[in-house]
Amino acid sequence: VSHSTANAGDPETAREERTARAHLSRVVEPGDPGLSGEVAEHGWLGVARRLWSGHGPPRWQARHKALTSSTAGLLRAVAKLGIHVTVPGDATWPLGLDDLEAADLGPVACLWVRGRLPHANGAADLSRRGVAIVGARACSSYGQHVATELACHLTAQGWTVVSGAAYGIDAGAHRGALAGHPGAGDARVATVAVMACGVDRAYPTAHADLLDRIVADGGAVISELPPGSAPQRWRFLQRNRVIAALTATTVVVEAASRSGAAGTARAAMALSRHVGAVPGPVTAVTSVGCHELIRDGIATLVRDVGDVIELSSPMGQGLLDVGPVDGPQAVPGAGLLPQRVVACLSSIDGMSTAQVALVAGLDVGHVRSILLDLEHTATVARQDGGWIRVGRRGRLGTS
Amino acid sequence: VSHSTANAGDPETAREERTARAHLSRVVEPGDPGLSGEVAEHGWLGVARRLWSGHGPPRWQARHKALTSSTAGLLRAVAKLGIHVTVPGDATWPLGLDDLEAADLGPVACLWVRGRLPHANGAADLSRRGVAIVGARACSSYGQHVATELACHLTAQGWTVVSGAAYGIDAGAHRGALAGHPGAGDARVATVAVMACGVDRAYPTAHADLLDRIVADGGAVISELPPGSAPQRWRFLQRNRVIAALTATTVVVEAASRSGAAGTARAAMALSRHVGAVPGPVTAVTSVGCHELIRDGIATLVRDVGDVIELSSPMGQGLLDVGPVDGPQAVPGAGLLPQRVVACLSSIDGMSTAQVALVAGLDVGHVRSILLDLEHTATVARQDGGWIRVGRRGRLGTS
Repeated sequence: VSHSTANAGDPETAREERTARAHLSRVVEPGDPGLSGEVAEHGWLGVARRLWSGHGPPRWQARHKALTSSTAGLLRAVAKLGIHVTVPGDATWPLGLDDLEAADLGPVACLWVRGRLPHANGAADLSRRGVAIVGARACSSYGQHVATELACHLTAQGWTVVSGAAYGIDAGAHRGALAGHPGAGDARVATVAVMACGVDRAYPTAHADLLDRIVADGGAVISELPPGSAPQRWRFLQRNRVIAALTATTVVVEAASRSGAAGTARAAMALSRHVGAVPGPVTAVTSVGCHELIRDGIATLVRDVGDVIELSSPMGQGLLDVGPVDGPQAVPGAGLLPQRVVACLSSIDGMSTAQVALVAGLDVGHVRSILLDLEHTATVARQDGGWIRVGRRGRLGTS
Repeated sequence: VSHSTANAGDPETAREERTARAHLSRVVEPGDPGLSGEVAEHGWLGVARRLWSGHGPPRWQARHKALTSSTAGLLRAVAKLGIHVTVPGDATWPLGLDDLEAADLGPVACLWVRGRLPHANGAADLSRRGVAIVGARACSSYGQHVATELACHLTAQGWTVVSGAAYGIDAGAHRGALAGHPGAGDARVATVAVMACGVDRAYPTAHADLLDRIVADGGAVISELPPGSAPQRWRFLQRNRVIAALTATTVVVEAASRSGAAGTARAAMALSRHVGAVPGPVTAVTSVGCHELIRDGIATLVRDVGDVIELSSPMGQGLLDVGPVDGPQAVPGAGLLPQRVVACLSSIDGMSTAQVALVAGLDVGHVRSILLDLEHTATVARQDGGWIRVGRRGRLGTS
């Protein structure tokens, strides 16, 4: 967990600005059209101080007055849950967020983080090595397969997969990322879930286990909304601009015509990010949004991880990164295969051996043999004819 | 059948040039790199006269000497089979073929025609109202469905569908075109099959019935090769350039990476034609060529008939042409539905009711009721659990 200074000048001012930004994240709704102007005039600390002394837009004052805890107190309380705040100047502040203001998409005051973000030393920052994989909740098995495969191959090659933890494509992206990642011991961050609610909440609740696993395996669950925030409908739109800004490339794997994922793609274009879309059958409603993005010239048609890396890299560089990544050899070391199988499983919903094999990209016979071994060590169990993950891995970031 | 003059000046010269071109089509292999230069120097009639007097490239002289019939005799003989020749200046000479020479793709001496080509009065010429639908022989049921649907909707809106009569996408395109066309009574040409052999031969032989049906329903089977020519491997490549040159747009519906259909698309690009490609699942080998064409900027992603017409039309015009074309109302008049069902059937391979419904774009229950009616009138029959077409419709253009 990083707590480096937000301001290289004065440590005390930096601490105050961190608290000010965290406070404003509690008071100002993401995307509030007035924030940018107020900050330009008074600075983050100035805007917060004005609120503390009774100034600023009435909508902010109203929320400020309604708070029942101090922001310093909240920061201390959530630290016990493994939640911290990152602000500009921190080693883990994602540099891509700095582009939001210029694109007129509204600045992010701070990020609330559960888990670990890459250190923004340049090379590992999400704006260079992060790919957003987004798409429909009601996706097809084809879309689920493609999202999982892309994510698995991306993390196996050291990329970080960013998504929104929703059902469907998002979940496939996160699960694939976990399956492809060498594991919690690896310094690289497999996947980051960007929430439209506080990071202390699981939304959807059925993904509580997935979110815990993301944190446990060395990734992060993040939000610009403070802990306790509810996933209101309008917050998803704002959340999508954060996903687009964080990453080098947004890939849409299946989306309806005017969907949130298509909106993320348009935000990515506004931010001069790369945009890819995976085609599908023209007879499938699930691919309508992708085909529109390609036809409208917003997205490049991407077929596989090679296309995504080529799209995401400085010119020509990506081509060198793409080794033979098909099949099990994408995960370095055969000893990691059981871990990859476990990463595919949920602790709630049983999956058939064939489903696990599909997600893991392994042969069914191979997966069956691994599952039987894991059953002996009580790492997995059978439930309603499927397999679930069991074991004592803690919640909230303890691994 | 059109026999207008090849040369507006002198009818005798025109007749001689028609015979000269027909003769050269028997002697010079399509795409021969020497033809263009010889014609530029001597003219078509001059090149033929030189052969008759023992001059010209040895490869042509050898073939010229090996002929066992005069070209005038051949023209008379094939006329009895409903086959005629069309040359530049004829009302049915497709204007698009004139672009082959400028694109350095080799001129076409003449076309041998069984059936009826559109009169090239401008509006109806294939270069304005013709769309090539091409693709893999080993296509998926998805590709078959899309080719059939596109073709059906195109002919229902008065467009002519051009293809190569091969298995797979080609056959789907021709069958869909016949299904969507109002029938032989309509002046518009539903579909044109461009052969890589003589028009007197059926290749593949299993498509003899399909080719007959194309002619019987007011379409055409054409080739630049004279009757009797065999479908040699290299002739398919040359045939593909003719398909591309004839039409306003080439649409590829499923193709392997270095396939003939992808070659047709590249020829179409070289001829400054529009090129469309239908996307499919990235997991399907059958769509690899289409995705390449889109990524390489050669083809525009097309999803449906609206996209194809928009692509094929002078700017903006296509948008006005697209009415509500989904479902049965695309065929004007409910009395035409039995005809549409019959058009979907083969007289050799049985099709299930569901398959017929898919191709015809009608409800299964509706198709079943039509088929049962048609069985009473002995227009269709059951064979091996499927439906086939029966009846006394003659071959070679008699309807």
